[in-house]
Amino acid sequence: MEHTIARTLDELTRLLPEGAIITDVDRMEAYRRDRAEDPNAGVPLAVVRATSTQDVQAVVRYAAATSRPLVPRGAGSGLSGGSTAIDGGIVLSLEQMREVTITPVTRIAIAQPGAFNAEVKAAAAEHGLWYPPDPSSFEFCSIGGNVATNAGGLCCVKYGVTTDYVLGMTVVIADGRTVTLGGPRIKDVAGLSLTKLFVGSEGTLGIITEVQLRLLPVQRQPTTLVATFATLKNATDTVLAITRTMRPSMLEFMDRTSINAVVDMLRMGLDREAEGMLIVQSDEPAEHARAEIASIEEICNQFGATECYFTDDPEEGEAFIVARREAIPAVEKKGALLLEDVGVPINRLGELVSGIAHISEQREVTIAVFAHAGDGNTHPLVVLDPNDTNQQSRAHVAYGEVMDLAISLGGTITGEHGVGRLKQPWLADYLGDDVLELNHRIKQALDPQGILNPGSIFTTTASSRNSS
Amino acid sequence: MEHTIARTLDELTRLLPEGAIITDVDRMEAYRRDRAEDPNAGVPLAVVRATSTQDVQAVVRYAAATSRPLVPRGAGSGLSGGSTAIDGGIVLSLEQMREVTITPVTRIAIAQPGAFNAEVKAAAAEHGLWYPPDPSSFEFCSIGGNVATNAGGLCCVKYGVTTDYVLGMTVVIADGRTVTLGGPRIKDVAGLSLTKLFVGSEGTLGIITEVQLRLLPVQRQPTTLVATFATLKNATDTVLAITRTMRPSMLEFMDRTSINAVVDMLRMGLDREAEGMLIVQSDEPAEHARAEIASIEEICNQFGATECYFTDDPEEGEAFIVARREAIPAVEKKGALLLEDVGVPINRLGELVSGIAHISEQREVTIAVFAHAGDGNTHPLVVLDPNDTNQQSRAHVAYGEVMDLAISLGGTITGEHGVGRLKQPWLADYLGDDVLELNHRIKQALDPQGILNPGSIFTTTASSRNSS
Repeated sequence: MEHTIARTLDELTRLLPEGAIITDVDRMEAYRRDRAEDPNAGVPLAVVRATSTQDVQAVVRYAAATSRPLVPRGAGSGLSGGSTAIDGGIVLSLEQMREVTITPVTRIAIAQPGAFNAEVKAAAAEHGLWYPPDPSSFEFCSIGGNVATNAGGLCCVKYGVTTDYVLGMTVVIADGRTVTLGGPRIKDVAGLSLTKLFVGSEGTLGIITEVQLRLLPVQRQPTTLVATFATLKNATDTVLAITRTMRPSMLEFMDRTSINAVVDMLRMGLDREAEGMLIVQSDEPAEHARAEIASIEEICNQFGATECYFTDDPEEGEAFIVARREAIPAVEKKGALLLEDVGVPINRLGELVSGIAHISEQREVTIAVFAHAGDGNTHPLVVLDPNDTNQQSRAHVAYGEVMDLAISLGGTITGEHGVGRLKQPWLADYLGDDVLELNHRIKQALDPQGILNPGSIFTTTASSRNSS
Repeated sequence: MEHTIARTLDELTRLLPEGAIITDVDRMEAYRRDRAEDPNAGVPLAVVRATSTQDVQAVVRYAAATSRPLVPRGAGSGLSGGSTAIDGGIVLSLEQMREVTITPVTRIAIAQPGAFNAEVKAAAAEHGLWYPPDPSSFEFCSIGGNVATNAGGLCCVKYGVTTDYVLGMTVVIADGRTVTLGGPRIKDVAGLSLTKLFVGSEGTLGIITEVQLRLLPVQRQPTTLVATFATLKNATDTVLAITRTMRPSMLEFMDRTSINAVVDMLRMGLDREAEGMLIVQSDEPAEHARAEIASIEEICNQFGATECYFTDDPEEGEAFIVARREAIPAVEKKGALLLEDVGVPINRLGELVSGIAHISEQREVTIAVFAHAGDGNTHPLVVLDPNDTNQQSRAHVAYGEVMDLAISLGGTITGEHGVGRLKQPWLADYLGDDVLELNHRIKQALDPQGILNPGSIFTTTASSRNSS
């Protein structure tokens, strides 16, 4: 099949729907950064707002023909700089590709990448079905971004992460061809697991233009327990005792700084003195949920909980979860943030949390910690004082030290946000040279020109962690 | 680090424990085939029985230095010829690497590849934990083989397949280096999803020498329902009506031929006249399981079940599952088998099953069908008459037609057994040229010499489906 390959922006304009290309610098401003607010964002040559797989193909072919870097983006809610624009490159926005179709008989959602996670959930719910993965940003993050980062969330402790729900996808690869990987089959082992490889590849191997997602029957109404603790250790010991034998449908943690930030913003009646708070849910059938929560309450009390409160009322329970989800915006009110996403084997959670407290103290930098505790996945937020450059440089040191700490505890530098550009300088330390080389070999095999989201996950320049 | 690289078998012998190398033709016979009984199995130069990752490294380095093909094998229970020996190659047996260690606090099993699936389950059970994936061969298949093929089983309809439980692994790559992928972290998105890529790669990308598996708390005792149907359509319509809204913990199907074979072998009192039988389990908390099974019974009756029988007694329920698991050996008593593993989107299950019946009739070949029906994954067994070469050639035609049918229904040529050598000729038809090329690019990137299990998944010679 013959394709018209655009070699200039004018030619590309003619291949795309009217208004798809933005070159006005002011209008492009909104497409230069994601929520990580990368200070090194470039000024792209153009922003293209694709409306179809064909549009994406035209853009990828143009980028390949002109060797221009291509940065894909969905809703721009990424937290690692995976969608930071590159000087002279193309930003490929998928925000207009938002269709979601549910096939109830096979319990599958077919979604375009720009659809919000919440829109997939809502479409599924209309058929009594449920798409579990629930990043805190689910109301404003795109499903394409979720797949690109293998996003997690709160329910993952029982229901797994994005990759566990991706059955197939349509991808435009680096030379502009469209391929379909996987499909609406629950089991399929014919050929290498390319679907799983593309999940979490952060736009570096291809541009996903459609995903097929497995859905579950709607979740039961949960029972909620909130427990506070006078010490971090009491809270993390409790987490470990719970996960050892039980599978709650949520097991979240907030430290004192997070609790206080949320209380300041939402005016909620949470205990400002607590060093740690756990929010736990069970979605077992009603009386079994209550029994599970009662067992968990007992464990909380064994480990010195200062207060336990439980409710069967889903709305009341949801209020606590909103508190947890609003932790980022709440802490953001204290200053600009460096967002961490470090995870450890669950038995090292206590050491991670106490180690972060130690770094915070040593560097005289506020670090708020909340966590998907049941997964060992924490989100320390390093707070930057906009008026204090010395504090800012201490904060950057602390940011690196938190990742170093996680690595030293057998943990990861990113559990669910992706490497992007902000964590890329630490990737080699985490993976080691040999595994990093395997990553590069696959990148080279699938994107030999290096046009797809260069700088995210993979280095493109001499930039190193020391320059960050 | 300096390594001694063996370039002759004598040198290799000196690097390995005593007795690790077998070159006696008679003793090698047991290592030339897996359960697929590939008639084209070669005679290897040697069989090496590794006892450690270091042994595996020595063997891989020897194979790389001498460009000899290396075929890994676990318990030899593979059904697709993934472990068929190659003339002049090395068979690397991992059967002696069988250690399993459970870390209860993190709910993780660390297993060497030769450990049986049942041994992992048993070790987990000692700590009140559960490793869900349950191929019918779980008592005699190795966990390394399970990971290499992304094996499934009966519980997958609710609990997912092997890849959903693999958190990390140790792999010896094609140049003999050892790498660790992933680890005991529930969430980890740092770098490409190499762990997931290696799951299901059938020994073509590296030799897995250790896996880290996520465990669940022990499963509840199930309630079991057995329902029989007078037509295939009634049975498959029932399956669809169940999976649309419910998640039973097992949903298996057997056709009349399978039922009769099992009755012949096990002397069980199953209905020989039924065209289809479903075996369904629920592992919800007791009274909820009974309620779920009651709803399912109602659906069965709506779709014309001729008989429904349910039991809360786990042992009685297990007897029916044994009947299902024994389907392969039972049908094997009728003749040699060509084993299929085709899967379709669940809404095409009826067409697949009726289409297979049509092929069986047209080709005058017995095809017994049983299925992990809830996953749309079927195992048609094409029976070969050892005394009738004309029947055998018709059977081979039917074998291909079943895969062609699955592909035409949007299905896969293998749901859980792997491509191996027996299904390799159909892979291109299934994947299409572009996706096949991506597979080859990754193979080339990770095994440029092509020494790792050549011929499995990937073609190495001019052999095509026409020669099979």
